[in-house]
Amino acid sequence: MKLLEERILKEGKVLSGNVLKVDGFLNHRIDVELLNEMGKEFARLYKNDDVNKILTIEASGIGIACIAAQHFSCPVVFAKKSKTTNISEDFYCVDVDSFTHKTTNKVIVSKEYLCEDDRVLVIDDFLANGCALRGLIKLIKDAGATLVGCGIAIEKGFQHGGKEIRNDGIRVESLAVVNSMNADTGEIVFG
Amino acid sequence: MKLLEERILKEGKVLSGNVLKVDGFLNHRIDVELLNEMGKEFARLYKNDDVNKILTIEASGIGIACIAAQHFSCPVVFAKKSKTTNISEDFYCVDVDSFTHKTTNKVIVSKEYLCEDDRVLVIDDFLANGCALRGLIKLIKDAGATLVGCGIAIEKGFQHGGKEIRNDGIRVESLAVVNSMNADTGEIVFG
Repeated sequence: MKLLEERILKEGKVLSGNVLKVDGFLNHRIDVELLNEMGKEFARLYKNDDVNKILTIEASGIGIACIAAQHFSCPVVFAKKSKTTNISEDFYCVDVDSFTHKTTNKVIVSKEYLCEDDRVLVIDDFLANGCALRGLIKLIKDAGATLVGCGIAIEKGFQHGGKEIRNDGIRVESLAVVNSMNADTGEIVFG
Repeated sequence: MKLLEERILKEGKVLSGNVLKVDGFLNHRIDVELLNEMGKEFARLYKNDDVNKILTIEASGIGIACIAAQHFSCPVVFAKKSKTTNISEDFYCVDVDSFTHKTTNKVIVSKEYLCEDDRVLVIDDFLANGCALRGLIKLIKDAGATLVGCGIAIEKGFQHGGKEIRNDGIRVESLAVVNSMNADTGEIVFG
């Protein structure tokens, strides 16, 4: 998606440790007009797939998911990072490693809000090693719901997550794929 | 706001410890159509106030803020709960107690995204004792920005937060004010 790539080139900052900082429009300050264009594009890509629920994970996926959901006329469910290790039977639960924070979180979704009848589009801001996405996919599987596919804002194509998940036969649509980036020069190359 | 009150009566659950659970449409599963009506109402209430930024706090405020921001044609900034105690000079920082989780979080906003020129509307899902709201208000003050007012989805009128903040001369608009609720009977009375 040209608009997103241009914005990344203009405002994204490449930090050491393969971190791409897009705090100016996606992760801290949010440009809702850009999100709306992204939502339209997800709706175009998945227009024939009868999506009736969007699943994301707190926190930075929520804005993208909510605005995209307006184009699907469906609700959003966001998986929560649980503070307790003691998860009740009312929740589906999965462990997710965080690439950015180098931690592991228990991520939960209430059984009430993810059901067999659901045709779920997973939306998230980043796809790198795929830990968060695989966690959300497992929650959908545990619920017996149908995974329609994934909609990602920015995929780091040089990490293995997207490739592995697509190899499992899962549809992954990324609006911008970064093929390489360089913390020394600040260069970002798209796929 | 009638629509929100009706939804709270229909789906809200009163739990012990003054907890009102609205997971079915606001805090876990999100009804984006309802959020859109709420956003329109905030825009109507603050239509003459030249709002050019919406400030909220992760996680559950983000969806409401993003959809409301579409009606103000302005960006959203969400304050982040920081994992580190060591905050760099690039951030405004404040301690916020969580009513729900009985914890204290350091909450931060990048100095880059909150400026003197900003006319800020604070949006959040709940107002109870007012800790989160007071934290966000302090961040705005520290930045030298102008606080236009606050837009709250659900205020617990029987707790002291809203009253105290209004007594400080700050405009607070809550779309639903719960005057009393009863965990034994499930009764919810609006103001």
